[in-house]
Amino acid sequence: MKGAVYDAKGGIEWKEVPKPKIEDPTDAIVRITKTTVCGTDLHILRGDVPSVTEGRVLGHEGVGVVEEVGSSVTRIKPGDRVVISAISSCGSCYQCKKGLGCHCEAKDGGWVLGNLLNGTQAHYTRVPHADNGLHVIPDGVDEEAAVMLSDILPTGFEVGVLAGNVQPGSNVVIVGAGPVGLAALVTAQFYSPASIIVIDTDDPRLEAAERLGATRTINPSKEDYAAVVKELTDGYGADTVIECVGIPETFDMCQKLVAKGGNIANIGVHGTAVDLHLQDLWNANIVISTGYVTTNSTQMLMKTVASGKIRPEEFVTHHFALDDIEEAYRVFGAAAKNKALKLILSA
Amino acid sequence: MKGAVYDAKGGIEWKEVPKPKIEDPTDAIVRITKTTVCGTDLHILRGDVPSVTEGRVLGHEGVGVVEEVGSSVTRIKPGDRVVISAISSCGSCYQCKKGLGCHCEAKDGGWVLGNLLNGTQAHYTRVPHADNGLHVIPDGVDEEAAVMLSDILPTGFEVGVLAGNVQPGSNVVIVGAGPVGLAALVTAQFYSPASIIVIDTDDPRLEAAERLGATRTINPSKEDYAAVVKELTDGYGADTVIECVGIPETFDMCQKLVAKGGNIANIGVHGTAVDLHLQDLWNANIVISTGYVTTNSTQMLMKTVASGKIRPEEFVTHHFALDDIEEAYRVFGAAAKNKALKLILSA
Repeated sequence: MKGAVYDAKGGIEWKEVPKPKIEDPTDAIVRITKTTVCGTDLHILRGDVPSVTEGRVLGHEGVGVVEEVGSSVTRIKPGDRVVISAISSCGSCYQCKKGLGCHCEAKDGGWVLGNLLNGTQAHYTRVPHADNGLHVIPDGVDEEAAVMLSDILPTGFEVGVLAGNVQPGSNVVIVGAGPVGLAALVTAQFYSPASIIVIDTDDPRLEAAERLGATRTINPSKEDYAAVVKELTDGYGADTVIECVGIPETFDMCQKLVAKGGNIANIGVHGTAVDLHLQDLWNANIVISTGYVTTNSTQMLMKTVASGKIRPEEFVTHHFALDDIEEAYRVFGAAAKNKALKLILSA
Repeated sequence: MKGAVYDAKGGIEWKEVPKPKIEDPTDAIVRITKTTVCGTDLHILRGDVPSVTEGRVLGHEGVGVVEEVGSSVTRIKPGDRVVISAISSCGSCYQCKKGLGCHCEAKDGGWVLGNLLNGTQAHYTRVPHADNGLHVIPDGVDEEAAVMLSDILPTGFEVGVLAGNVQPGSNVVIVGAGPVGLAALVTAQFYSPASIIVIDTDDPRLEAAERLGATRTINPSKEDYAAVVKELTDGYGADTVIECVGIPETFDMCQKLVAKGGNIANIGVHGTAVDLHLQDLWNANIVISTGYVTTNSTQMLMKTVASGKIRPEEFVTHHFALDDIEEAYRVFGAAAKNKALKLILSA
């Protein structure tokens, strides 16, 4: 079998790797049928995620067919068609019982796939804590839609929409219209906000946002974003601002746009400290939230996909054979130029 | 009548001022019987609150007897013994309906007493929106305890304990053992946290915290505060950290002490931006909250005082005649040296 192996010189190589085996009774071995590349994988190639070491098979998203399960796995059986969660969690430890499986304290718990363990950009992967990390895909659910349930849909929903307290009648701003921003956009609509304004400097991404339900888009290189949001919110600012980029400039935008009593939900992966303007915000009754996805919402989101309430396969812009993953990385590495959102790699 | 008039040269003068009159039908005139000086008043003397202009009578805390009410006041009548809320709110506007009377949009709404309007450090004061800004003191409630209901108790409770999501079994850290920190300390105990650790550089304030229920105190000039909190929380850090100082160093402490999944509740009045360490916290599932007190909890807190559940008169360290307020400001201006927490000035 082959996998996309991190070479620590800023690239991956699609090459022969050992086929994984059951190591713990809670494991499953999954034959990957579809996977994708995440913005986080590009961070890894840039050396931003030092926990990832040379020789690691990357990837924390994908769907496949269960080939083998360990002796204590009960919810999943060989032959099941499954979504692989980005997060592996034991379900029993202190953090899991608090609902924070992303900080699971068990062996092979937390975000481990494509990070501390070999991941999903391969013909096979070992999924630890399979009863929590795998979810059977109901008949009729599109496999490409299901790939979005590994990470981006629960991330946009939990870390953006839920943590940001989107409510009926809210004015919502999403800063950054990449895949996770679009995931926040479609799941925010569950709660019937009055408006969802999407900000990005890339026009094709703004067009995607318009197709997916944005009530207004703003390219801040062409419009005064703060003035437009102020006008659209009767001068109050946004009740919820969702940060989906991860740089100081975009976090600053969020602080300028949030209404008194509002929420800033940070999803972006930040590499440096940012200025928090407490001299202006100490008395503004705002809430700022951060976090990994827990993936506690995956099964609920699967139902919204199965019922046709959301159609996350619409995020997919490019298709490749899994064997062509090196080319897929090149395309995704210049995502704006190539108008790429999510890629699907099929085995 | 006399009032404590801000002279914009860093002081106040106790001098003759015009007696206030009813200006709007929602007003009340209150004869002050007891008032106090707040840390915010010292900020005003340092020029940190530019909305306060020369000639303003300071003070946003106090109790008194209603002398006269406007034609539309219904809940309050002349002769009532009342607490004056620091916040004036109409109860009807968009912000009030959202529960944010502190950002009331009506004329004379929000924090106006001792700021935009003449305040409570005087023989008489005009209270706008009296049906929301005055609360009748039940028989048997100590008047000194009631003064603490104007600002510090609801501030510590709402902006610290509620916004910080203190829960049964939580480990709580309070940074800063001034009056508002102590108010957070006593009201946090409503929720039976496992521990309340109070941090301050002033030993007499830490002794007060121990008397009022702190399970452990830390003077960071004598102990490694981060190591102590880590040990006391089984390595997790604090579920809730309440910031009651308002400088970058103390906000930094909070970021070092908060557990994954925890809350930082900022109460401190900040004059500059702070570093938010999103490079460490982006994936920590934390919540940071800020805010003015709304005073929505005042009547509930009055019941906890009336029932003897809390005894906020224990915050009082010094007594003065109202006519001696200039001396009271001198004592409070060197609060640590004088071991001062809350002063009571009686007319």
